[in-house]
Amino acid sequence: MSHKLEQLKRRIDVAKGDIPGDLLLKNGRVVNVFSGRAEESNVVLADGVIAGVGQYDKGERVVDLEGQYILPGFIDAHIHVESSHLIPSSFGAAALAHGTTAVIADPHEIANVLGVEGLEFMLSDASNSPLDIFFMLPSAVPSTDKETSGAVIDAKAVAKLLNQKPEFLGLGEIMNAPGLLYGDDEVLNKILAAEGKSLDGHYPGGTGSFLNAYCCAGINCDHESIALAEAREKLSRGMEVFIREGSSARNLEALLPLIDHGNWPFFCFCADDISAADLEEHGDILHILRKAVALGLEPIRAVQIAALNPARHYGLKNRGAVAPGYIGDMVVVENLADFPISTVFKEGREYKATYEGQALSLGAVSLPRLEPGLFPEPGKHKYARVIKVFPTEIITEEKVYHSQELAQRDIAKIMVIERHGKNGNQGFGLVEGSGLCRGAIATTIAHDSHNLLVLGADEEEMLFAAKALAVQGGGAIATLNKQVLGSLTLPVAGLMSANTAATVAAAEREFLTVSKKLGLTLPSPLMTLSFLALPVIPKLKLTDKGLFDVDKFDFVELYLD
Amino acid sequence: MSHKLEQLKRRIDVAKGDIPGDLLLKNGRVVNVFSGRAEESNVVLADGVIAGVGQYDKGERVVDLEGQYILPGFIDAHIHVESSHLIPSSFGAAALAHGTTAVIADPHEIANVLGVEGLEFMLSDASNSPLDIFFMLPSAVPSTDKETSGAVIDAKAVAKLLNQKPEFLGLGEIMNAPGLLYGDDEVLNKILAAEGKSLDGHYPGGTGSFLNAYCCAGINCDHESIALAEAREKLSRGMEVFIREGSSARNLEALLPLIDHGNWPFFCFCADDISAADLEEHGDILHILRKAVALGLEPIRAVQIAALNPARHYGLKNRGAVAPGYIGDMVVVENLADFPISTVFKEGREYKATYEGQALSLGAVSLPRLEPGLFPEPGKHKYARVIKVFPTEIITEEKVYHSQELAQRDIAKIMVIERHGKNGNQGFGLVEGSGLCRGAIATTIAHDSHNLLVLGADEEEMLFAAKALAVQGGGAIATLNKQVLGSLTLPVAGLMSANTAATVAAAEREFLTVSKKLGLTLPSPLMTLSFLALPVIPKLKLTDKGLFDVDKFDFVELYLD
Repeated sequence: MSHKLEQLKRRIDVAKGDIPGDLLLKNGRVVNVFSGRAEESNVVLADGVIAGVGQYDKGERVVDLEGQYILPGFIDAHIHVESSHLIPSSFGAAALAHGTTAVIADPHEIANVLGVEGLEFMLSDASNSPLDIFFMLPSAVPSTDKETSGAVIDAKAVAKLLNQKPEFLGLGEIMNAPGLLYGDDEVLNKILAAEGKSLDGHYPGGTGSFLNAYCCAGINCDHESIALAEAREKLSRGMEVFIREGSSARNLEALLPLIDHGNWPFFCFCADDISAADLEEHGDILHILRKAVALGLEPIRAVQIAALNPARHYGLKNRGAVAPGYIGDMVVVENLADFPISTVFKEGREYKATYEGQALSLGAVSLPRLEPGLFPEPGKHKYARVIKVFPTEIITEEKVYHSQELAQRDIAKIMVIERHGKNGNQGFGLVEGSGLCRGAIATTIAHDSHNLLVLGADEEEMLFAAKALAVQGGGAIATLNKQVLGSLTLPVAGLMSANTAATVAAAEREFLTVSKKLGLTLPSPLMTLSFLALPVIPKLKLTDKGLFDVDKFDFVELYLD
Repeated sequence: MSHKLEQLKRRIDVAKGDIPGDLLLKNGRVVNVFSGRAEESNVVLADGVIAGVGQYDKGERVVDLEGQYILPGFIDAHIHVESSHLIPSSFGAAALAHGTTAVIADPHEIANVLGVEGLEFMLSDASNSPLDIFFMLPSAVPSTDKETSGAVIDAKAVAKLLNQKPEFLGLGEIMNAPGLLYGDDEVLNKILAAEGKSLDGHYPGGTGSFLNAYCCAGINCDHESIALAEAREKLSRGMEVFIREGSSARNLEALLPLIDHGNWPFFCFCADDISAADLEEHGDILHILRKAVALGLEPIRAVQIAALNPARHYGLKNRGAVAPGYIGDMVVVENLADFPISTVFKEGREYKATYEGQALSLGAVSLPRLEPGLFPEPGKHKYARVIKVFPTEIITEEKVYHSQELAQRDIAKIMVIERHGKNGNQGFGLVEGSGLCRGAIATTIAHDSHNLLVLGADEEEMLFAAKALAVQGGGAIATLNKQVLGSLTLPVAGLMSANTAATVAAAEREFLTVSKKLGLTLPSPLMTLSFLALPVIPKLKLTDKGLFDVDKFDFVELYLD
């Protein structure tokens, strides 16, 4: 008799009440996502699966819940694990503690650094994660040809990976809306390769006939709505609304009023990007659930959205509910007002955090030979183009200053150095508004290709910082007078650490404090810097290929006459 | 450039409004199943797919709807096509005229007659059907070992078919609940073979721990609820409620009050079994939709249930909505009160009934040699067991009469003759309550193995009828004095005709009228007879293996002392 057959027979016997289950939760109130009601019930499990919900009294282990609520485990419908700077196993340990039992992850960041090798690492490490990570295959590797990525995953590779690796539920957020709308064969062939699988959207501001055109390719969800009218229109065109509430983008308050009796099945919650600190403090979905209920969403509706809806959206058949045959992923909370978690069960086992961190690195930061004298001087040029940054924005402005004026302003030098060992490109620019007035700060987190970005007062210091960061294996570093002031080590692709969320969060706090010694006035300097190299968000950006005007969608000169 | 890529590009261009679509529906009101609202909109299509919903004004063909409503095509979540006595292409022609654009069919009947050959016929003929037929693989071939079926599809064959034929969405209604509950390896291995696919339920009266045990195998829908409390309990255990309203079982009125704001995503409509006459008159789902709204269901909620919910339940990604990227299956109705259909669009083409019927037969009725003198006489036995039938019930009662009493009562002889060429078994019994007092009536529709069942006043007439029906190729026949009074020819497996629904409905009406000449008082004699051989519904039944007491689950003698 096969093991599966044996388990099924045993589960049926437990459900019939003939033999005790492995675990009996008694005196609970099940939040029933199907009936939409809380129901007084016992729950019995066998081999990690819920066998029965009802009048059960036998279990090898019995837990008296004394009237507490049993919720299905939460599912984050869209997350970039890399943004937490934690590898999947560490991310999972932190998220599960707050009731998230499964996530749909788009490993877009590591794919742009390490390609298929990076994806394979994520899949492999995910299997060590205490929660379940389902993957979407990144659709934009590279994101554009305006920067040098570490890898290319073209339409052919997409077709092969989707075919060979069932871990990928479909094609990850399709960010190249212009490519789709104007008939780019690569984009469209990736979409065709995902036929029958999930197609995730990413279309900020999509509206009207362009939105129709985007959706008619089969894309049926989006997490980029920031305004209610935007989300309403997308929903009407058949896009499920993933309400995003992460560490930076926070759309819950704006979008929540859209949910009503007739459309609630078409909403999910997602964090998209969440920091290790936030994850450690309040989890990804739990935080949204609490806030949604505080804002007035009916609690059981909130649980349906937090658990069942993403399972149904992604066709995860036996997840998102406390019901017979469902995986024993459950969250026990004291009340449905602020959802204080008393226990999380993963596949029927009480979760106790045991992840302690590990030493792990993947990939090297591979820089070209860097000698002082690279940074171009104005020479006979009269003017310079300057990237103006703002404290809490990821858009920038273009400023043009007389070159003699530069020294009197809050302007620092910036370089983006190709770090994947491809071509050693270097892009040069000037940044106003960071506050940096001494030393240098460098990072290997720089969307979307994650080249090495360094901001500094003078070139020698910048090259020192860049080289020190390469030796460190990536992450971020702050230097002053050729001394390392502080560093955040992210040795997995220069994006992630294998330490615990608490350790990484502490290191990030410490690094922020230290980096302020350089004069930085930005509240989240690494976050601001990480978007300076992204050539799809206005206005002036810097990649390893040079200074880029996003509105003109072309490279521009640093100095002009 | 591949054809698919070309089509996708063209669709995107149509959606952008750059080029005209093939079809433009203007001045419509789209019933938007996502927003839960009716929205004034134009709809533009390209290559049979909806490209855009909104402000469009260009189409090769333009239809002004003058304010009529555009609904997504209806989807019947569970149907046995064979019960209509129409082959799939004929069934489809009739159903589509009333707005059903897709059905989930369980070809259980033909599978029990012709096995895989029968399934292949259904798949092949379905491809000629003007609507889309998705299939569930029958799970009970044979239904029990208490009768001789024409074929066996065991767990191994189930695994092979599910693996090889993507037309099967999963395993069809699992009727063998006792087998599941008591660890029958065959039943459980069929379930395991369907892992990751749909598992349909069929568990009349399921409740308590047995219901949990049934569900914990992964079964997540059921269409057998007749009472509100039953449906409520099943829903709470995670079973989607398929509200059945067909030609015999009608559960809408009882179950409709269960639908509320918090649970409506978990309901579908289905006919299960529908006659050609009913199909021809009012369709399968349209009829339920109208009745549901008449009973008070909010019209847009009713459309969501009739179209989107079944699509989502079965993972049919681009069906059930009028939205970009969705198949152009649409129903135009004048109002949302009684839904008078003005046009049905299938894949963007206006449906005009063209099916004219065809000459088609499949399989032969293979009887053993039959000579008078087979039917056992009471002899020295004092008493006889009699099957008592009731006008509108499929259950029977057992009556025991003194053998001398038989002639004074409304009692006819009945035989079930194995007709698949397997063993030529014959079962004999007596039936009270049919009204038949002369001649004989025979049918090859006799659930679940569909052996030849003949009811008659005397044996010679019965054998004449049986042989004449075999010559005819199956269906039903009524004879008197060895003359054929009337016949209903169903030459496809003895279950279906390739004629139009109208023709078959007329033939059935005619046959009913003629058969009354035999004294029959049953309102639907063929329906009542067809359940007399089903050894799973109480109480006394007759199969080719003999008289069967369903409550004792054992064969019993016809005569006793």
